[in-house]
Amino acid sequence: MLKGSARAHTNIALIKYWGKANEELIIPMNNSLSLTLDAFYTETTVIFSEDLTADTFYLDDILQDEKSTEKVSRFLDLVRKMATCPLFAEVKSYNHVPYAAGLASSSSGLAALAAACNQALQLDLSDRDLSRLARRGSGSACRSIFPGFVEWQKGNSDETSFAEVVPSNGWENELAMLFILINDQEKDVSSRDGMRRTVETSAFYEGWLQTTPQDLASAKIAIHAQDFNKLGSIAENNALKMHGTTLAAVPPFTYWSPDSLKAMQAVRKMRAAGIPCYFTMDAGPNVKVLCLKKDAEKIKAKLRDYFAADQLVTAFSGPGITYL
Amino acid sequence: MLKGSARAHTNIALIKYWGKANEELIIPMNNSLSLTLDAFYTETTVIFSEDLTADTFYLDDILQDEKSTEKVSRFLDLVRKMATCPLFAEVKSYNHVPYAAGLASSSSGLAALAAACNQALQLDLSDRDLSRLARRGSGSACRSIFPGFVEWQKGNSDETSFAEVVPSNGWENELAMLFILINDQEKDVSSRDGMRRTVETSAFYEGWLQTTPQDLASAKIAIHAQDFNKLGSIAENNALKMHGTTLAAVPPFTYWSPDSLKAMQAVRKMRAAGIPCYFTMDAGPNVKVLCLKKDAEKIKAKLRDYFAADQLVTAFSGPGITYL
Repeated sequence: MLKGSARAHTNIALIKYWGKANEELIIPMNNSLSLTLDAFYTETTVIFSEDLTADTFYLDDILQDEKSTEKVSRFLDLVRKMATCPLFAEVKSYNHVPYAAGLASSSSGLAALAAACNQALQLDLSDRDLSRLARRGSGSACRSIFPGFVEWQKGNSDETSFAEVVPSNGWENELAMLFILINDQEKDVSSRDGMRRTVETSAFYEGWLQTTPQDLASAKIAIHAQDFNKLGSIAENNALKMHGTTLAAVPPFTYWSPDSLKAMQAVRKMRAAGIPCYFTMDAGPNVKVLCLKKDAEKIKAKLRDYFAADQLVTAFSGPGITYL
Repeated sequence: MLKGSARAHTNIALIKYWGKANEELIIPMNNSLSLTLDAFYTETTVIFSEDLTADTFYLDDILQDEKSTEKVSRFLDLVRKMATCPLFAEVKSYNHVPYAAGLASSSSGLAALAAACNQALQLDLSDRDLSRLARRGSGSACRSIFPGFVEWQKGNSDETSFAEVVPSNGWENELAMLFILINDQEKDVSSRDGMRRTVETSAFYEGWLQTTPQDLASAKIAIHAQDFNKLGSIAENNALKMHGTTLAAVPPFTYWSPDSLKAMQAVRKMRAAGIPCYFTMDAGPNVKVLCLKKDAEKIKAKLRDYFAADQLVTAFSGPGITYL
């Protein structure tokens, strides 16, 4: 019996991953940059055993259906190939993440699974190689291997596409991210489908690709200079640009709901009142507000004018992979 | 005393005018296509007289300030030059349009003024030349000279940039447009400033220019075929694309407010329920719903689930210039 357990935290991109150059290997079209957060995480235990006759996958103690299990199995196949291990596995995950709420639960989930497998099969992967492995499960998971600010180097092959820490002198510990959880009735377009449709059909995708490298370079300069307003405005603008690309897809779509706009307006209003804060959004209606840790409580209190207490969650900089 | 009076109706673009190639002459970057509507209009009387010592401009019986009057004066200068008339003028306009609500009041306003001047100074302009003149006052005004479906040929000079009717066999009389009036607290970016910022800074503007000619060609085919769903979806997609361009401007901006999203969701929901209807938006938070005339009351009733009665105005196809 080969067993491994690990915890991985969600990361939220400040410069977005939006589009794959290679769907099979999950090589992205552009570098991205994220902040790993403490509030949302996944703990996963994997057991490879001769007693099993198929892969099984439990999420929060509930046995998952064929479709979910198949995604896990495909990932396990990669690991089994690396370890020349023929055994089936039982995967048990606990998601401390509002599931499928655009909170990048797949990033922590696949990062934790990759690390648990690394431990179980004694693959002894470097962090970089673990990042490459996690990437194969879910692109953004490669960033959750590391703490703080992380850049995903797109590379151009399985070997060259991995995440790494962006040196920041611990500045991430002065920051916070407030999650505004927005429940939307509309059926979502998954991030996978959304980015594919955008890459294939959006007249704006070329503009995204042409300008995002500059956004990323500027963000790294802002991190180096610990310039919060610069980093925040670059992140907000990059997120708006990502969401703009979907409006020229064929057919067009949007992840925004009325309350997403309400949150954006609230952030702009606080900023106009002198409180430094900036929003970002991913492939769902939730809005995340980047702010200084010292302002987090004040901002959360102001957001209560617009949203219920249980819609607001505060997160701080979080750790990378932890083996349990 | 030289007097002229005319009425002009608002038009709403289905393929948007978004960006100037020449700011001075108001030559647009792309052709646009609109529907002239009956519900909103401007009536203007102009009197050129030796008794006047300056231009004066009354809007709804209120004497306007220097800034508004100067805009009118600049337009009158063009007309005076055409007519070699040295006289100052008194302009009295009545706007049957919710003012500055993104309802293209400037389109009816400048079209009515151009026509009133044409009559007062006996310029005897053809409709095409009147359209060119109105264009100098406000780009989209050139389309309000004509009834029904109208295309603004961008041209490349003052002479070649004008509007003309799109033949439609009277199909426009089977259509309606519901206006959802949305009051937003946020300070607006004027359409003039918004398009300028987009042309100058948006990474998406090139994508807009590359794809809008095809949208326009498809819209004309749909009009010819009287294919409502095709025309509606092209119009909705073109509007979303126009609004997407602003998200990549530097700095980015949006005309959308929470209630704009609510209106879009309501339209998508009605469509999913089998009612053919499509939205469009201009440089403001209001949403306009294109539908078949026979469905207008039903759609209006359903929109009452989301909006107050006084936020909803029904419009049908309207006439071109009328001399009074």
